[in-house]
Amino acid sequence: MLVVPTLTFEQARACILEQVTCGTTAETVSIDDAPARVLAQDLAADRDYPPLPRSARDGFAVRAADLPGRLRVIGEAPAGVHFAGTVGPGEAVEIMTGAQMPAGADAVVMVEHTSVEGEEVIIDRSAAAGDNFTEAGAEAAAGEVVLTRGSRIGATEVALLATIGATTVPVYGRPRTAILATGDELVAIDAFPDPWQIRNSNAHALAAQVARAGGCPQILPVARDTVEAATPLIERGLESDLLLLSGGVSAGKYDIIERVLDRLGAEFFFDRVLIQPGQPLVFGRARGTFFFGLPGNPASTMVTFELFARAALEVLGGQVGPTLPITLARLTHEFRQRPGLTRFPPARLGADRPEVTPVRWSGSGDVPALCRANAFLVTDPERDYWPAGELIRVLPKR
Amino acid sequence: MLVVPTLTFEQARACILEQVTCGTTAETVSIDDAPARVLAQDLAADRDYPPLPRSARDGFAVRAADLPGRLRVIGEAPAGVHFAGTVGPGEAVEIMTGAQMPAGADAVVMVEHTSVEGEEVIIDRSAAAGDNFTEAGAEAAAGEVVLTRGSRIGATEVALLATIGATTVPVYGRPRTAILATGDELVAIDAFPDPWQIRNSNAHALAAQVARAGGCPQILPVARDTVEAATPLIERGLESDLLLLSGGVSAGKYDIIERVLDRLGAEFFFDRVLIQPGQPLVFGRARGTFFFGLPGNPASTMVTFELFARAALEVLGGQVGPTLPITLARLTHEFRQRPGLTRFPPARLGADRPEVTPVRWSGSGDVPALCRANAFLVTDPERDYWPAGELIRVLPKR
Repeated sequence: MLVVPTLTFEQARACILEQVTCGTTAETVSIDDAPARVLAQDLAADRDYPPLPRSARDGFAVRAADLPGRLRVIGEAPAGVHFAGTVGPGEAVEIMTGAQMPAGADAVVMVEHTSVEGEEVIIDRSAAAGDNFTEAGAEAAAGEVVLTRGSRIGATEVALLATIGATTVPVYGRPRTAILATGDELVAIDAFPDPWQIRNSNAHALAAQVARAGGCPQILPVARDTVEAATPLIERGLESDLLLLSGGVSAGKYDIIERVLDRLGAEFFFDRVLIQPGQPLVFGRARGTFFFGLPGNPASTMVTFELFARAALEVLGGQVGPTLPITLARLTHEFRQRPGLTRFPPARLGADRPEVTPVRWSGSGDVPALCRANAFLVTDPERDYWPAGELIRVLPKR
Repeated sequence: MLVVPTLTFEQARACILEQVTCGTTAETVSIDDAPARVLAQDLAADRDYPPLPRSARDGFAVRAADLPGRLRVIGEAPAGVHFAGTVGPGEAVEIMTGAQMPAGADAVVMVEHTSVEGEEVIIDRSAAAGDNFTEAGAEAAAGEVVLTRGSRIGATEVALLATIGATTVPVYGRPRTAILATGDELVAIDAFPDPWQIRNSNAHALAAQVARAGGCPQILPVARDTVEAATPLIERGLESDLLLLSGGVSAGKYDIIERVLDRLGAEFFFDRVLIQPGQPLVFGRARGTFFFGLPGNPASTMVTFELFARAALEVLGGQVGPTLPITLARLTHEFRQRPGLTRFPPARLGADRPEVTPVRWSGSGDVPALCRANAFLVTDPERDYWPAGELIRVLPKR
């Protein structure tokens, strides 16, 4: 018989991050195909950033010691043009945001604080050396690593890749992720189910989650609730980089998935986590491939993917240090729970405001309620009551 | 001369949401291509959910009035199979999660709280009618709208589409979004710039942001700082559903973009917002197309896109009520600012915890600092100091 530990939410996350390592190889893509991919090498600055001292404002480049005062304007320095002159005592150069600081100047005064009379500029306030410009190399020195292997590429990373001229980008391959829904009650999504049947929504929802997390989803045929039906499909799924099963992992006598995996020589790291939705949850490895046995109720499937399987997928795909963006918001209504589990009930964050309202739901099968939510609460297992106005942890949908 | 208002952060968001309306037409895609698209019709449940009372647990379906007690097991109800019998007094049916409740039963007792002896099950605790099952129609009634027009489709929406058998999905088209970077200092990203030049990173970063927000980006050639060069490119951009300009909108004398737009008959809704980064920021409409003049410093460009242009793009693409997921976190270090502006400095959220650390940066040109961040602080313009441990608003990168 299997003896597999029950873990807390935090222990289960830690276990996954300890077990899984990068499982794909690198390839090269164009910068415009790089978003959502994971960088496969450290990348360094090709020159100092900024390469020369750079004005942060439109205004006048001056010698701070001359101010307040009336200065002679000896020229102008627009962005993108080399300014060859030098600012001497009593002199100023009109300068634009992004332009190179002229030699001799040690401060920029914002145009809003100046007035021009003929060839002179009048500045009534003092300035300090260093005002309103950025020193050469202040953001990065030539050769310094500015993007590290394992970074997920978003818009800011694209900006940096473009800045340093990385028009092609080394990225990790997308982990091939097999999705295997199990259960005699499932019919295809284009079928009309009998009242005791449901359409196979989990496979399609998981495919969307896998793609969003950087994986390549492959939906396998539904596995019926027999060892004979499930075994060849599980074997096929184990040929991928990751196998996600849904259903078949609770204490019910038709839940034969764990038995099949055991016969295939699986190592089980945990098979129950003290959370809701999603308490029965299996994580293990068989034939060199990690697998998750996610509970079959739709909310449980989706929540446990986000909390656990997503981190495994991200690490397999080369990402370093995946995290959950758990923050805080104020409850608009009181909230109660039975203590003992970390619960993730659906909730709705206010528009542009750190307020959160629990969404009424009838439990882990209630998909309409999940669609009315844009976040999940993350409860403290030791508490049973939060009054309205109290802070509570939240995890926005991603 | 133009007279255009300066707005607060909140006023500028409200102005955009008031002006912009859906600007694209509907098309039909397969459910597996629906993620990240916007639903173009209300969709209703095809039957009651659940269609019959459904067990939420593995265990035994019972008559609550019989407990505690010893009950005769008259059969089993696995998921996906029609159970035709009726539970009479002193009887129970073994039941699986997701299975239809047998007639006569009014509660489910979890298997963990039962023991079986031969053909009987012994249950030492009492139960209440309604325990551990979901009533027919509790989640949605047949014909009830379960997904509303204007919803952005994520994994939970895919689950609901699949559940109700929506294998093809009516969605709005992606807004065509022209991206026009301006400035004499810009060179192509595959060129090697002189020390006073920079690569055109903004166009590529904006393209990534536009795609992420559901738009179709089109990068136009760089507009040089003359009316003659900028005019035809701006005219071309105005043929799209939305035009994003970067650079050319501050008080500098080469910032000719506003003048060109004015000559093209533009209406300006605001041209300055009390935020940092990104104070100079133009929002208007010309020739029927909305445009944003985003400031040219990379951090300003990206932050103002996220705060303002993204909402416009989302609404143009049919999304109803776009919001910013602003929540709270505890500062690990003290934070100071000059009051007067809502500031969005880069910051790093802790792993799985509501803690946030400001990232050191040298201002709106500092792209490496943005890449070390995974969030932005959202400061209160009236404050100048937050001690370590204090709550502050945060906006995770998306």
